[in-house]
Amino acid sequence: MGPGPSLVHPRVLQALSKPLVGHLDPLFLGLMDTIQGSLRALFQTGNEFTVALSGTGSAGMEAVVANLIEPGDRAVVGINGVFGSRLATMIERSGGIPVPIEAPWGQIIAPEALHDALSRGGPVKAVVLVHAETSTGVRQPLEAVGALCRSHGALLIVDAVTSLGGIPVEVDAWGIDACYSGTQKCLSCPPGLAPLTMSPRAMDIIRRRRTPCRSWYLDLSLIAEYWNDRSRAYHHTAPISMLYGLHEALRLVHEEGLLPRFMRHQLNGDALVAGLEPLGLLPLPSNEHRLPMLTCVTLPDRIDDTLVRTQLLRDHGIEIGGGLGPLRGRVWRIGLMGESCQQAHVLTLLNALEEIFAQQGWLDQPGRAVQAAVETYTHSQVSARRGA
Amino acid sequence: MGPGPSLVHPRVLQALSKPLVGHLDPLFLGLMDTIQGSLRALFQTGNEFTVALSGTGSAGMEAVVANLIEPGDRAVVGINGVFGSRLATMIERSGGIPVPIEAPWGQIIAPEALHDALSRGGPVKAVVLVHAETSTGVRQPLEAVGALCRSHGALLIVDAVTSLGGIPVEVDAWGIDACYSGTQKCLSCPPGLAPLTMSPRAMDIIRRRRTPCRSWYLDLSLIAEYWNDRSRAYHHTAPISMLYGLHEALRLVHEEGLLPRFMRHQLNGDALVAGLEPLGLLPLPSNEHRLPMLTCVTLPDRIDDTLVRTQLLRDHGIEIGGGLGPLRGRVWRIGLMGESCQQAHVLTLLNALEEIFAQQGWLDQPGRAVQAAVETYTHSQVSARRGA
Repeated sequence: MGPGPSLVHPRVLQALSKPLVGHLDPLFLGLMDTIQGSLRALFQTGNEFTVALSGTGSAGMEAVVANLIEPGDRAVVGINGVFGSRLATMIERSGGIPVPIEAPWGQIIAPEALHDALSRGGPVKAVVLVHAETSTGVRQPLEAVGALCRSHGALLIVDAVTSLGGIPVEVDAWGIDACYSGTQKCLSCPPGLAPLTMSPRAMDIIRRRRTPCRSWYLDLSLIAEYWNDRSRAYHHTAPISMLYGLHEALRLVHEEGLLPRFMRHQLNGDALVAGLEPLGLLPLPSNEHRLPMLTCVTLPDRIDDTLVRTQLLRDHGIEIGGGLGPLRGRVWRIGLMGESCQQAHVLTLLNALEEIFAQQGWLDQPGRAVQAAVETYTHSQVSARRGA
Repeated sequence: MGPGPSLVHPRVLQALSKPLVGHLDPLFLGLMDTIQGSLRALFQTGNEFTVALSGTGSAGMEAVVANLIEPGDRAVVGINGVFGSRLATMIERSGGIPVPIEAPWGQIIAPEALHDALSRGGPVKAVVLVHAETSTGVRQPLEAVGALCRSHGALLIVDAVTSLGGIPVEVDAWGIDACYSGTQKCLSCPPGLAPLTMSPRAMDIIRRRRTPCRSWYLDLSLIAEYWNDRSRAYHHTAPISMLYGLHEALRLVHEEGLLPRFMRHQLNGDALVAGLEPLGLLPLPSNEHRLPMLTCVTLPDRIDDTLVRTQLLRDHGIEIGGGLGPLRGRVWRIGLMGESCQQAHVLTLLNALEEIFAQQGWLDQPGRAVQAAVETYTHSQVSARRGA
């Protein structure tokens, strides 16, 4: 129950253990085509270039930045957590000029600040935003950003590492030009691949670069020849077993259906927050911008961060995440992603926390945490029946 | 039996399907330490920084180049096949100046040419050589190159993607500063990781760079903090399942023992070459510089490349590799790597080729191919008994 990797379904684990075929075998090329179709449905896009890169989510981030940003390009980047900072670093390493919009950790990047950044200081090649900040649990609203970017001639780049498969990521409807994710969050596949989609506009810009992309391994114009071109030209040896796993994980996503999957994440996230409140653990982000799959709560002073997380892992077999950067020791990050997003997990964690808190004398009234979560589940069933 | 991926042992496939723990879980950090020890034994090095990067062999290539080559650095690179060219491209994309030494495909880079390149035109930051050229089947002699590089103050970078685990790769004895490989060749693990070792001298140079590494994802100074530093600082989420697989693949390598493993590759490679000769299929490289795990043979004019490879795959379930670049349609590349390197495979392939050749009327005397291979195996057993 950390901020990823999430649990992996036995069907995905089985797929990983299938014997290998070659990366140019017709059977395998067919499997790649199927994966592309499933990813398009998930990203809600018609983009031809919709693939899984041979690296983790951070490789997806680097691929998008290194391909779209050339030396001298200005890129507006929202920084309200670890991953915005990482993006700014990558923009610099591609020779670009990051134009940071900073917000306190736990808050969103305000639309007005975006508008201001686009309106002053010269042309902007791209706006880069993190949809789901894994370091703070904040959901960045994106519905209106695409139109704003287009009116300034800027591309919209979105980090959907933690959101994809847990909440809607509507690439075409929101006007996103480049969107990447990871496999180990709400897709519940082991880490090692980066799902990625690029609009035709973004691919055109890559093909008309003035300078070669600084990365050969992540050069999307070359990777497109393997994934999309009829030549299926060899670029590097695809990570075959990982793609078997992703293929099965995507089947599970579509068997459940996107909407039921999003509702499951929302309900369990709500129940967890309801249960943590009686323990004095309140979400860092506002209710409006809270992610359901990654709950970031601030620790009251009396709570010993390391003691609790060590006991959870050792005595209860539960991993939760600590804070990163300035939030180190000050927050917990609890993941409810994909296969890990289950009512039983929410209740087991709350029960374990109550036990540890009671032992430490941090709890006045035991039992209230689990009870609050159960009430959320019950209320949801009652609502569903009334609606039916 | 292509040029990789090779077959994977059932124990490795099983390891891939084990449930996940977190990438910062103490259990997983211990597994990383074990992998480092096994890789050091395999690379025959004491280098502290000996890790498995989160990408395929080409990511290992890019990591070494992008970290060691800064803008303006001259790097001598041997080009006698696809992978030398790829290295030259990567040197350029890192801002470096490749100083190519070209040799015909199928031949080695001559020591005199190396000496010349180091002696003229100013200082050289690194010499980059491919130990086992997968596009031609050539083994580059390396025993004396390290001393030559050191006398010119140059680093020695070696591509051991296809050689590691199949023939000796003696990093310390040969004075190699940076050496990378892939998992899907003689280690018989699925593709997706790049074993990599760097000398302390190379790591010092990386830590004293004038400019930041152009890649953040492959920045080895940051990756070292996760693999080697006591802080085990999070950089990116490690591909956990793939590392489970590599851990098991390395156990298999060391259970067999390096020397018996190298002898197995040599014997099967020799038997294959002996068997291909009566079919008119002669090795492209000279006998002295022929790789045992990747046999590259030239096709006589009468042979139809695509017809044979299609029939092999469809009717016999055997994949062999075609030629790349200028060798397209002119050679076959037959892999005998790791688990794929078995007497039964050699004989089955030869038998299938004889059948297809006979059907096409390309064969005068059927049975000679298999017989020649069998004689090699018998001769080897007799020699072994005499030696004992």
